Amino acid sequence: MNPNFIPTQDDLNIRLMRLQQMLIEAGGDAALISTDVNIYYLTGTLFAGCIFLPAEGKPIWFVQRPSGLTGEHAIYIRKTEDIPAALKERNVPLPETLFLETDQITHNEFLRFETAFHPLKIENMTILLRKARMIKTPWEIEQFRFSAKKHAEVFREIPALFQKGMTEIEFQIEIERVMRKNGSIGYFRTFGANMKVFMASLLSGKNADVPSPIDFALGGRGIHPILPIGASDNLIVEGSAIMIDFAGNFTAYQSDMTRVFSFGKLPAIAYRAHQVSIDMHCRFMEEAKPGTACSDIYNLALDTAGKSGFSANFMGFSQQAKFVGHGIGLEINEPPVLMNRSGDFLQQGMVIAFEPKFVLPDIGAVGIENTYLVTESGVEQLTIGEEEIIRLET
Amino acid sequence: MNPNFIPTQDDLNIRLMRLQQMLIEAGGDAALISTDVNIYYLTGTLFAGCIFLPAEGKPIWFVQRPSGLTGEHAIYIRKTEDIPAALKERNVPLPETLFLETDQITHNEFLRFETAFHPLKIENMTILLRKARMIKTPWEIEQFRFSAKKHAEVFREIPALFQKGMTEIEFQIEIERVMRKNGSIGYFRTFGANMKVFMASLLSGKNADVPSPIDFALGGRGIHPILPIGASDNLIVEGSAIMIDFAGNFTAYQSDMTRVFSFGKLPAIAYRAHQVSIDMHCRFMEEAKPGTACSDIYNLALDTAGKSGFSANFMGFSQQAKFVGHGIGLEINEPPVLMNRSGDFLQQGMVIAFEPKFVLPDIGAVGIENTYLVTESGVEQLTIGEEEIIRLET
Repeated sequence: MNPNFIPTQDDLNIRLMRLQQMLIEAGGDAALISTDVNIYYLTGTLFAGCIFLPAEGKPIWFVQRPSGLTGEHAIYIRKTEDIPAALKERNVPLPETLFLETDQITHNEFLRFETAFHPLKIENMTILLRKARMIKTPWEIEQFRFSAKKHAEVFREIPALFQKGMTEIEFQIEIERVMRKNGSIGYFRTFGANMKVFMASLLSGKNADVPSPIDFALGGRGIHPILPIGASDNLIVEGSAIMIDFAGNFTAYQSDMTRVFSFGKLPAIAYRAHQVSIDMHCRFMEEAKPGTACSDIYNLALDTAGKSGFSANFMGFSQQAKFVGHGIGLEINEPPVLMNRSGDFLQQGMVIAFEPKFVLPDIGAVGIENTYLVTESGVEQLTIGEEEIIRLET
Repeated sequence: MNPNFIPTQDDLNIRLMRLQQMLIEAGGDAALISTDVNIYYLTGTLFAGCIFLPAEGKPIWFVQRPSGLTGEHAIYIRKTEDIPAALKERNVPLPETLFLETDQITHNEFLRFETAFHPLKIENMTILLRKARMIKTPWEIEQFRFSAKKHAEVFREIPALFQKGMTEIEFQIEIERVMRKNGSIGYFRTFGANMKVFMASLLSGKNADVPSPIDFALGGRGIHPILPIGASDNLIVEGSAIMIDFAGNFTAYQSDMTRVFSFGKLPAIAYRAHQVSIDMHCRFMEEAKPGTACSDIYNLALDTAGKSGFSANFMGFSQQAKFVGHGIGLEINEPPVLMNRSGDFLQQGMVIAFEPKFVLPDIGAVGIENTYLVTESGVEQLTIGEEEIIRLET
């Protein structure tokens, strides 16, 4: 396995100290962290079990599996209920104010922790973790750079994969394969229950305007009612725009990138709308920096869409998304969200997907998405590649 | 989209009546069902929102998205908190005993429902739903037949995809593509937090014995620490067994099937252990019928493993799984579980994956997995295909 996928201890310590500082400020005595994404965040590895994170002092790993983990910080347990006794044995006081991932663990998991620890108070650790994870560490930023570079490389291969007569799903399958051959982990990690998709969204023609129950920017019919999102078995017809939006999970940190391809020449309106998106990106790169309000970015985009005459097509047509971008990281949908009701401001170390898109019924979706790193004084584009609509040769 | 993917109203009514009967028996006034898998189960479609299921009378769909759903049963809401008022408007009494999916929804989702409805009592709907889903309806059984047939077809194509010099992940990627081209939905639907994998498990040689934190029968290192399961970037070496275990999600109902391939000739012990698994399947087909205890099936397999001298290799070597099969359906891990501490009995209409496997360190894993339908008087094998170890030509 690529040794660069293992975080340095220094980098893990930054995360640990940040979270302990937050715990202290929030009046917490300790947190129990049991979701895989947050165990990975704190340790760079995965185990079934949970981390006991005291506000001060060393965390303890309570491990159910795999067998064979070693180190003074790892204690094997059979079940959650064994943890309090194991802590007492080590003279660790049980927390009075306990933080749990209450936006992630099930209600019944919550009850098991509550019954085992009966603390005076239980607070929300999900919020602290998502806030901590919002600001990426140096090692995490390197992971993004690696993902984004691979991501852009795969996108350059896309035109060679298209053949006349393909359905959306057939085209997507060939791209999936090239993603995987370049190291994509495949699994698309999201936050929340209503965010399931298989690897990507590829939308052409009228499928771009099919509303989906699933909470992504755009919809699509999918190939089965159990996963009504993205590519369908519709034939890709001449004169349609093909929007390809894959997450670049070549590391645990997912870059996000969208490009538009055309089968034949598109109506002029498609190129005009696409140019509005490109212009928004230019404007974003000029304006965005630490301190910029996320709501301002959204409203500027909404405004620009209005002035260009594409309000009705902005972020959907039959069903419009109310955001124009989002934080990314271990999960594709992290804070902050670039939306009107956001109270967040950009901060150095955030990684943001900016995705102004327009749905033109019958033609398809246009606009691009890039991943940006918020630097000390502005933003740096990580997903580099042709931004115009790319015409596919057949 | 394939019209056969839409359930009949009669079939949906069977499910509805079964659940309402269970609700009445459990003393529930109503349930709120908000997870996608159970919304799909009850409606054959997906929406964001929830179903209000009274113990008697028609269910109401409270829909947040997609836009455009019609029908008297669908009411659009903005948020969970709008539901009680919408019910009162329709003279539907608020439930005193409310069933929620407490093994699936997050604690904070639970609190939102509790605050909006403040019922006298909240009970566990996940248990009822999993119990209802355990017995498949006629339409669901047809979906399994379709999935299993496609599944077996893809497995016949596997030998042609292998090339000498491939890594595990390279071989897997080619199989993924053929799965997808044959209609696989891709998304691997599981129950519980610790069940993430990307499409499949392909294990050869020593990777078959790498313990995983993820709760499948076998492990594997994976290609990244964020998803430590299954195929690695190890070269597939001559003399190793290659176990290929894919879920056949060609419909919403996932068949489960494992076959073993060999690169070159294997040591004799591998064929012997593999034959023990095949014999266990024969015995399973003779013995299993409605009324058979799931614990008996497990203990019979464990016993047979012991008598054949393969106890130490049964269901893992460094880390052994304590089950030999499981129910399948919309999720890959449904009840019943074929394990020693199961209190369940086979019932007509269950669909079961039986997967006695042996891990031989350095050689790989052997044994097969098939999907069986429990019929009136026995079991019927749905995944039909060569069961011996299949030697790959290079």
